[in-house]
Amino acid sequence: MEEIYCFAGNPLDRVSQRRQDAAWVASLLENPATRVLPLHGLKPVVRHWSAASLDWQGVGPWRQLIDSGNTLILLGIRGGHAFFALDAGSTEIASDNGSVLMDARAAAPMIDGGEAAILAEARSLIDWHDRHRFCARCGAPSVVASGGWVRHCPECKAHHFPRVDPVVIMLAVRGERCLLGRGHRRPGARFSCLAGFMEPGETPEEAVRREVLEESGIQVGRVRYLASQPWPFPSSLMMGFLGEALTEEITIDPEELAEVRWFDRDEVRAMVERSRSDDPVPGLATLPPPLAIGHQIARRWAFGIDSV
Amino acid sequence: MEEIYCFAGNPLDRVSQRRQDAAWVASLLENPATRVLPLHGLKPVVRHWSAASLDWQGVGPWRQLIDSGNTLILLGIRGGHAFFALDAGSTEIASDNGSVLMDARAAAPMIDGGEAAILAEARSLIDWHDRHRFCARCGAPSVVASGGWVRHCPECKAHHFPRVDPVVIMLAVRGERCLLGRGHRRPGARFSCLAGFMEPGETPEEAVRREVLEESGIQVGRVRYLASQPWPFPSSLMMGFLGEALTEEITIDPEELAEVRWFDRDEVRAMVERSRSDDPVPGLATLPPPLAIGHQIARRWAFGIDSV
Repeated sequence: MEEIYCFAGNPLDRVSQRRQDAAWVASLLENPATRVLPLHGLKPVVRHWSAASLDWQGVGPWRQLIDSGNTLILLGIRGGHAFFALDAGSTEIASDNGSVLMDARAAAPMIDGGEAAILAEARSLIDWHDRHRFCARCGAPSVVASGGWVRHCPECKAHHFPRVDPVVIMLAVRGERCLLGRGHRRPGARFSCLAGFMEPGETPEEAVRREVLEESGIQVGRVRYLASQPWPFPSSLMMGFLGEALTEEITIDPEELAEVRWFDRDEVRAMVERSRSDDPVPGLATLPPPLAIGHQIARRWAFGIDSV
Repeated sequence: MEEIYCFAGNPLDRVSQRRQDAAWVASLLENPATRVLPLHGLKPVVRHWSAASLDWQGVGPWRQLIDSGNTLILLGIRGGHAFFALDAGSTEIASDNGSVLMDARAAAPMIDGGEAAILAEARSLIDWHDRHRFCARCGAPSVVASGGWVRHCPECKAHHFPRVDPVVIMLAVRGERCLLGRGHRRPGARFSCLAGFMEPGETPEEAVRREVLEESGIQVGRVRYLASQPWPFPSSLMMGFLGEALTEEITIDPEELAEVRWFDRDEVRAMVERSRSDDPVPGLATLPPPLAIGHQIARRWAFGIDSV
């Protein structure tokens, strides 16, 4: 089986054939086994009891918000339970002993992998509705349909579906060295794989070559797909690749990146170690944290697990 | 290098770093080397001279439509020429001797592969603008920016980017047999790979397993990525996979598909031949035409080129 990275491995049956049945979806809300994940400003509450987990609730306390039309998503079913996400608004809620409101990125490494994947699904959907309340075709307010998986326009009858934005993320490799870049936004020395959004009318392999050329001036030949990761900030699909670099001389666009350079395997191995540390040494090159596929692509190449 | 299917292999430099420079984009329109591809109701004109090709034009005849605000896309540059697509509206134009208004799907197999890829880029972008004239966040009319690659909302300041909708298309294989399905819309016996749109919070491999299970009741284990194809109807990215079927008994959702069944290699090879014929025998099973990645996935498995 393929590598499963953070935010993948969702255990729910998405019931995508049944969720357009509004009466059935409504009946699930009457079932005492049904669980609701409220997101507050897109953040979940994480319970810290014996192990950290998402703070799933019964429907009861949330009935008023549901009835008043807050966005509700049928995430899926499993083991006789239906699971919903609810947009509980951006009201700050008090953390109590054992329950903490957390950003999804901070929560994900603490909770079970399946729960992190459900959280990714919930966060992407709630955020998409929040930013798509109007019909892009005619400008009228649109309404939620199909258990939260469609927005329907009552005026022009258009249907709108949640976005999944494919991103290519790649390590260009030449012999024993690989190409990593550093952006402007993050101070310090955190390097990562190059990456960029795909555009209409290209394949992922073409997007890999285009992005590496744009960001570093390096030409890439063969491209090999490795694995993918959902990235719910807000709704990306990170598709990971290795690419065979055909040239060596780097030319960066200084508006796009602060630095791009070649690293050998030993350097990347040291960066892998540093990026796992809670107390990184300032100034020494590091990688994104292990939850990011960019970390895993670089690690697997550096340790000889994947090759182009 | 990977397989290049129809609508892939775009030869243009998309100049995605430069196209936000409105003055530079405007200056390209003053250059006599610049070429415009008008789409009429999303259809290009194809010239049939010695070889079929897209009917690229100078800027001059289109200046009035451009100045009146019809959607204009900077497709890219190559060899000192800039290439634009223009939404010329849905006015039917008369075909003359040697110039025919054609659907993009009909045009693609006749013209050069690079031109078909440029046509895919043009069609997806023009169609996206046509269906996204209003800001989904606030409902106000939005305006074209960055050479046609962004819509900007003057009211709420949101930026909207063209959609690329990832689709998984897969052949589930068990030993010497593979799984193909037939939809309701198309009469006759055209079978194809199963396929479906990806959803937020899943990987392509997970989407392959979900779609095959939903559409056929078959469980899939290992999944192997093959190649991708842009599919500009309107803006899909078809990602092709082989999957290892773990079960044999088919249960279809009769609302989704009319028939799903197992085919052996000899049957699929015969279907490949029939799908290349201009005069198919009614009632005999066939495949989509060779331009579709679904045809190629089935063909390559049937002839032993790819295995799961």
